[in-house]
Formats: sequence, C-alpha cells, structure tokens
Amino acid sequence: MSAGKFAIAIHGGAGTISPDKITPEIERDLRAGLEESLEAGHAILRNGGSSLDAVVAAVRVLEDDPLFNAGRGAVFTSAGTHEMDAAVMEGKTLAAGAVGCVKRIKNPILLARAVMENSPHILFVDEGAEAFAREMGLEFADPNYFHTDQRWQALERIRQAQAKAGELSDQDRHGTVGAVALDQSGNLAAATSTGGYTNKRPGRIGDTPLVGAGTYANNRTCAVSATGDGEFFIRAVAAHDVSALMEYRGLKLADAARAVIDKVGDLGGTGGLIAIDREGNIALPFHTTGMYRGSVDVAGKRFVGIYK
Amino acid sequence: MSAGKFAIAIHGGAGTISPDKITPEIERDLRAGLEESLEAGHAILRNGGSSLDAVVAAVRVLEDDPLFNAGRGAVFTSAGTHEMDAAVMEGKTLAAGAVGCVKRIKNPILLARAVMENSPHILFVDEGAEAFAREMGLEFADPNYFHTDQRWQALERIRQAQAKAGELSDQDRHGTVGAVALDQSGNLAAATSTGGYTNKRPGRIGDTPLVGAGTYANNRTCAVSATGDGEFFIRAVAAHDVSALMEYRGLKLADAARAVIDKVGDLGGTGGLIAIDREGNIALPFHTTGMYRGSVDVAGKRFVGIYK
Repeated sequence: MSAGKFAIAIHGGAGTISPDKITPEIERDLRAGLEESLEAGHAILRNGGSSLDAVVAAVRVLEDDPLFNAGRGAVFTSAGTHEMDAAVMEGKTLAAGAVGCVKRIKNPILLARAVMENSPHILFVDEGAEAFAREMGLEFADPNYFHTDQRWQALERIRQAQAKAGELSDQDRHGTVGAVALDQSGNLAAATSTGGYTNKRPGRIGDTPLVGAGTYANNRTCAVSATGDGEFFIRAVAAHDVSALMEYRGLKLADAARAVIDKVGDLGGTGGLIAIDREGNIALPFHTTGMYRGSVDVAGKRFVGIYK
Repeated sequence: MSAGKFAIAIHGGAGTISPDKITPEIERDLRAGLEESLEAGHAILRNGGSSLDAVVAAVRVLEDDPLFNAGRGAVFTSAGTHEMDAAVMEGKTLAAGAVGCVKRIKNPILLARAVMENSPHILFVDEGAEAFAREMGLEFADPNYFHTDQRWQALERIRQAQAKAGELSDQDRHGTVGAVALDQSGNLAAATSTGGYTNKRPGRIGDTPLVGAGTYANNRTCAVSATGDGEFFIRAVAAHDVSALMEYRGLKLADAARAVIDKVGDLGGTGGLIAIDREGNIALPFHTTGMYRGSVDVAGKRFVGIYK
C-alpha cells in the first residue's frame, strides 16, 4: 500500500539532445525550468494536496516557460500559427479531460482540467474548445504571446530545409511536457501538454490529448505521460499498454514501461515516457539521446537530467 | 491459423431500441441497410479482397443510408450543424487514420483512410482535415445533404426536453456505424464512423476516431469497433483493452469483449461493440436493449439483428 508515500516525475520532451547543441546558459535555464516545475508539483504533494493538483501545477510551469514546447513556447505550424494539445487524467476515477488544436489558450492544461471537471465530455477541439474556455473564464493570450524567436527560427530552418530530417535537431521539430504523480491518499494522476511539432499541418492532433496514447492514469496500475513521435505512440496505444502489461501480465512498472518504448521503436518511432506506480516507483525510459526529465522519489531524492 | 477463412461483422449503433418505437416499415429499411452493408463488405472478402477494403465499403454503405447516424444521416449539433468523426485501422501494420469534427465530407470513412494512406499523421480535425480532403480530391457535400427531417426533429425534441434523458430515445441521442473483418490473407481491420450525438456541443470528439477507444485492429489479437456513450469508452480505452485482455491474459474474444463492455457499464456508460479475432470468431456484446448489427461468419452464415 502507498500509506502516505508520494512522488512525482516530469518531462520536457525527448529527442536528439546533445551537449554541443545546447549552450551552458540554455542548459542552466532548462534545468532551472525543470526544477521549478518539480518543486511546484512536489510542494503540493508534501502539503497533502492531490496528485491531480500536482501534475497540473507542474505542467503549468513548463507551459509558461518559453524553452519548452507547450503553452508559451509552443512551436509553429506550417501556417505560422500555434495549435496546442493537452490532457489530464485521474487514476482514482478514470476521469479525463483533453483539448486539441487550441490556438489562444494561455494554459491548455487548465482547459483540459476544466473539460474534465465541468463538462460531460473528454475531448474538445479547435473553436468549440475555445468557446468552452470562454465560458469557463480561462485566460486567453494574444497570438503574439506564443511567438518566441527560437521557435520562429526553427520554422524558418525547417521551411528552408524542406523538412529534411537530417538537418534539423529534434529540438527544432517537436517536444512535449508532462507530469505524473502519486499523492498521500494513494491516488495517481497524469498530465501532458504540447505545441505539437514545428511545421505540422494545421488540424493534426498527436498522442498528447488522447487517453491511453500519450496520457493515462489508473490507480490499479500506474500513471503515464509520453513524448516523442506522436503517431507511433497512438498506434501502440502506448500509455494504456504500460498499464495493461502491469495489470494483465503482472510486469513491474520499469519492465512494462521499457517494453512499450521498445514496441514504439519497433514500429519506427522514437521518444520516451515517464511513469509512476501506486507504490511510488518511477520509470523514465527513452530511446533518444536525451529527455528533459526530473523526479522526486518517495524518499525525497531529487533528480534532474537531460542526456542519457 | 486463419488459412483462407474470412468473416465480417457490422453495427449501426446501440441504444434503447424497442419494437414499439420502430414501425415495421422502418425496421424493414434498417434491416435492408444492414444487409446491404454486410454484402458490400462480404463480397470483397469472398473475392479475395482485403479486410481494409471490406470494412471501408461496409461503413460507406451505412454512411450513405439516412437511417444511420453517420455521413448522410448524421445527427445535428447544438448549433444545428453536423460534425462527423471516423477512423480506420489495419491489424497487420497497426496503421491507422482518423478524422474528427469534419462538417462537409460526404464519406468521412474515405477521408480517414486517406489520412492513413497519404499522410504521416493519424488524426486530423476540423478545417485542417477538410483542407487535406480537398488535396485528396474527396467528395464534399452541401450541408443540406446531411439534413434529414428525422434528425432535425430529434434536435427539436431534445431542445424542447432540455436534454431530459428520460424523454428521449437513444435513437434520438446517438448512434455510430462500424465494421470489423478478417480477410483470406489473415489480416484484420476495423472501421467506425459517426455523427456523434444529437445536440452535442461543437468541437466535442467521442471515442470513434480515437485509436484504442472506439476503433482498434491488431493481427495478434482482434479488430474492434465500438458504439455507445463515447466518453466511457474513452476512459476504458475499450477497444485496446479487448486486445490486451486477449494478448496478455489469454482470454478468448467473447470473454474479453464481454469483460470490457462490463467495465464500461461499471463506469456508468452504455453501449456495445463488435469484434472479430484472427480465427474469424465474432462477438457482438451490448448491454442496451438493442444494437443494430449483422455478421457473416467463417461458415458463410448470415445474421442480422436489432433487439436483444
């Protein structure tokens, strides 16, 4: 039993991340962003708050940080716009909320939570999602808020390279942020948010807002948030598959998480995921050269990492 | 091994369906629509065609039939518009394609297939999906094409009843069409299409276009198409769960399908699903009073049913 144990893990995306592409200044800022996100979530757990509150708070910090591809730092679509996806799920009730292709919501993860708590639905997209956001009184942001020079240059580079993958870092292409947590009441939760990937076609939705693909939580097993080539995580129904391998085949969290990442790799996709079980065990597998990630385990030990 | 065996199953939605609410004429037309859909799919399988071709053909017939809630007969949103969702998946490759909230595509299932075959993506929504449809040369329909008096009256009744569930038949509220098939090469496929439910909020997406929720196919296990209260099928990751129970726990198709429908019921949802395994076994479980359904099994035996 979890008996008051609590823990949290976060990610800020996986990809081809190498020290020679990241300046010391940016690495310091990335680590600071991860630390701040971890602390936002962990403080809630320490004070007896819910895992739902913790993962939303942790993701919100990363959405507000221009270095991560979600919210403020969302990448540009091929139309030079922003379309963001987010989801949240509670392990106790299997309640979930998600949004896709929202263009002007400052914090998509807050809208996903509002969908879960204030509508009978799970997934709203596009204008319908924004109409709901307006009713909920959520904060809208001017398109200019989401304009970061770094992301705009990434779009320019991709346009110039005509999407030749070899000339682009994964940083240019995609990224996602997410959090999973176990709270003192033994409840699991997961949250994920993304701007998709640079130069994506308008209207494309990836795995992030799809329950069971990029986001899943179930108190019987685990909470999962994924990052990487979304389409492969969708085909693998990756997040739910981690849970199913634990529940039906009796695998431990780390083995189930690794098995699913390997399946995604067999399909041709790359990426990683973060997962936590009801004992507070944490797994952070990825098969890229790096994944922005962090955790505070049940013993209170903090970890922040970027490279393999 | 499947060794040349082939079979197909279809559904046209599950709900509170009782003989006193359906005139003999309408029942005859409903049965004729199911028969025509079955035959369209089965003829392809008999002639050695693929399960993918078969399920798309079967669903297309139901999309063109105004009596079923997909394509032509799609229900109205609260805005008096139509927003359709569809998905298709191949069991051999785990390739999938899906669309959500498309408003003017005559056959959403054809667009879902085009997304699978002609884009690197799986799910497109709204205007982005329609822009892709235009590039693919798919047929658009005038909004008037989707206007059926029956569905308009359903919207009027719901508006008058202020969505008091007791005063409405499930027929008024929702419905979905779908098909699953095994072809002579041993490949499974699934396809699902829907107009959602009457008076839904614009922007809402249900389980139909979500891989693993309303639609799933995997040659290791089964192909599944679901119908019912979509949000509950999403939370249960229902279609993938049928597969996972077979693969990881060794359940037979019928037992896995029934277990998942029971889980959806435990969450508070109603509905049903159709499923087929790689031996051609078929399961059509539902816990409503009726489900429009049909099948042709590996022995060539035809079945069409409406009530329990």
